[in-house]
Amino acid sequence: MQTREFFVSAPGKVILHGEHSVVHGQVALAVSLNLRTFLRLQSTSSGEVHINLPNIDTFLSWEITALQPLLAGCKEQGGLKDLDADLLKRLREFTRISEDSTDTRSMAVLAFLYMYLSVFAESLASITVSVWSELPTGAGLGSSAAYNVCLSAALLSARGNISNPLTPQQESARWSKEEMELINRWAFMGEKIIHGNPSGVDNAVGTWGKSQIHTSFYLFIIKFMLHHFTLFITGGFLRYHAGNITPLSWVPVLRILLTNTKVPRSTKVLVSGVKDKINKFPSVMKPVLESVSAVSCVCEQTLIEMAERGPSAEHYNILEELIDINQHHLNVMGVGHSSLDTLCRVTLARGLHSKLTGAGGGGCGITLLRPETDTTVIQSTVEELKACGFDCWETSIGAPGVQQHSSAALSQHILKILSSY
Amino acid sequence: MQTREFFVSAPGKVILHGEHSVVHGQVALAVSLNLRTFLRLQSTSSGEVHINLPNIDTFLSWEITALQPLLAGCKEQGGLKDLDADLLKRLREFTRISEDSTDTRSMAVLAFLYMYLSVFAESLASITVSVWSELPTGAGLGSSAAYNVCLSAALLSARGNISNPLTPQQESARWSKEEMELINRWAFMGEKIIHGNPSGVDNAVGTWGKSQIHTSFYLFIIKFMLHHFTLFITGGFLRYHAGNITPLSWVPVLRILLTNTKVPRSTKVLVSGVKDKINKFPSVMKPVLESVSAVSCVCEQTLIEMAERGPSAEHYNILEELIDINQHHLNVMGVGHSSLDTLCRVTLARGLHSKLTGAGGGGCGITLLRPETDTTVIQSTVEELKACGFDCWETSIGAPGVQQHSSAALSQHILKILSSY
Repeated sequence: MQTREFFVSAPGKVILHGEHSVVHGQVALAVSLNLRTFLRLQSTSSGEVHINLPNIDTFLSWEITALQPLLAGCKEQGGLKDLDADLLKRLREFTRISEDSTDTRSMAVLAFLYMYLSVFAESLASITVSVWSELPTGAGLGSSAAYNVCLSAALLSARGNISNPLTPQQESARWSKEEMELINRWAFMGEKIIHGNPSGVDNAVGTWGKSQIHTSFYLFIIKFMLHHFTLFITGGFLRYHAGNITPLSWVPVLRILLTNTKVPRSTKVLVSGVKDKINKFPSVMKPVLESVSAVSCVCEQTLIEMAERGPSAEHYNILEELIDINQHHLNVMGVGHSSLDTLCRVTLARGLHSKLTGAGGGGCGITLLRPETDTTVIQSTVEELKACGFDCWETSIGAPGVQQHSSAALSQHILKILSSY
Repeated sequence: MQTREFFVSAPGKVILHGEHSVVHGQVALAVSLNLRTFLRLQSTSSGEVHINLPNIDTFLSWEITALQPLLAGCKEQGGLKDLDADLLKRLREFTRISEDSTDTRSMAVLAFLYMYLSVFAESLASITVSVWSELPTGAGLGSSAAYNVCLSAALLSARGNISNPLTPQQESARWSKEEMELINRWAFMGEKIIHGNPSGVDNAVGTWGKSQIHTSFYLFIIKFMLHHFTLFITGGFLRYHAGNITPLSWVPVLRILLTNTKVPRSTKVLVSGVKDKINKFPSVMKPVLESVSAVSCVCEQTLIEMAERGPSAEHYNILEELIDINQHHLNVMGVGHSSLDTLCRVTLARGLHSKLTGAGGGGCGITLLRPETDTTVIQSTVEELKACGFDCWETSIGAPGVQQHSSAALSQHILKILSSY
């Protein structure tokens, strides 16, 4: 153990364009969201491992001596390899989380214990990990990836596998490119535990988010090659073989409203509904997927131009038009919802343009704010959206990726939550 | 003159699918609408020609001796040839309707006088023509075509160029195929006077509407070949060279609500807006046009299947899905309007699906009624739409084309209006 107390944070993600059509081989744009997950790691001498997840009312601890036997059968301890299905199986037995449990608490505990045991395999350390997030869970905002990125960065740093980049003078610091690649790969392992076969996009956005060197931000272009696309409807998982995740050149920060309609939806049902619709009306639906892909590409070009030449009103007009077009296309795919129509109508009444982000059928939407959008307009929009029963945050996209923080860098509110345990 | 009193009627039309995209070479479906225009022609001995158009408060008459000199310069009197620009020019001078007047009254009068003088060129007869329509004007429902088809059928019959098909035992009767072709060609001449360069779809639908032999109805598939597509934005006219208008095989009658939002719009501005959007985002918009074309084709196939195998609930589901998809596509093209969103929302709240028909940007929308849709549901929908300030008719598509009627066949209401003059 190199440190007594350690703070890290990682951003969420939103899909700007290309949700659903990405499943069918088209281009999508994902971007980091400035709603973050914060983690505090303390090294202790208790002989115990504690995990505190106040967002989901989960506070658990284990004796290290009880955990040690779980590592007995591991072939290659501490290394980053493919997911060790045997270890995961033993963990499920140990925690009495059955094979078909996929609830947030169970998955968070499994990912933590798996990562802790793998990273500290050579010598299990007494630690207390507390995680608190601004991100709602299960809303398609990459909350699990932000959690896994925080766990990965904190555990690897605490174990000494990567540096402890924060100098006494700094409030926040980031790791080297190589270290961030390691963080990302371990976070992806956590994502596999939680999601079965994740695309790798969420953890990439959570890790890289913002370039450390440049003052503008990364977008990620996801190109799913889908050589072996397989959809297991009956198995309860959407499985696909993801292709390239390409970081985009520098793009401007965009202010947004993020709205959670809180209408529950099943991503699996929505994805299979889109697939059914494509099979039912291929001649109608395939051009729609192509058009969505073109929306992503035009958006990418526009963002690059905004970064290169400076943003203009016309750039924002284009971004707004693309948002409207894609929202209509998502409605054509059948993943709209009356709550999302309400979001679009309420914001458009103030000249603001919105689209769903993620799976749709409820869930979250984003509203682009223009540089000149007045604070009073934003406030009244947020109020009206909250009056509709929605949660609503004024935030931005293009947030920094995973960071280490000094305690001074954190708000009193967050510090208080993380230090309660 | 073969008759003292003569009644005819012709239906309106709606575009079921393909408005706007038809301008860019895609397939569209137009269908007759069971809101009709009725005409009464009386032969008199007054030495005058009267035209009464109570819908537009137009009641005019001319001495035949005053009209006669207008024919002096005509090269080929009474024949059906290309529009005689000289005669039209003399008519404008005679009626003091200037070159740039395009209002409904002026155009209706010009079309009537042109057709009357051309058909009766050899011997101008004393007649009184009264026309009343269930169709709103300028709403994209083919009201001018229904007017021109009525004029054409009545004048050609009165002149003896076509038969007077009604036997004393009949309430309604239709002309032969060859006679209807003549009616259609003369009606198209009227359309040219009113619209400059019409597609020919509206008069074809108004003429043919329903097959005389079969009990089901014609749809018209419009395939614009557009070898010489030209858009004169500055000239104030949309000009295009239309291609084939193909009658579709028998299709079922569909009950609909027709709603006029009464929001005024300029077709020219809307058409040029779509063109601008295609030029701005070709990679995004061209697939949308393709998808609309596919919607028309799938709809056509579904209607044929409904006629061949009998309509099923699944057929109606498909028609509803296609309506929703196309409405979203029209929104992508930028021709939606909040009033049309209201129409869609109000009807969808009762499980009914709507789309705009025609130019959009307000104007009219159609709502598909299912065979099992309850009368109380329809009534409450109509009431709510009227409360929104809209006009709303419960009607059907697939109406009979031009017909001759006995006075007994007409409702007292219509008979009373037409007989007031």
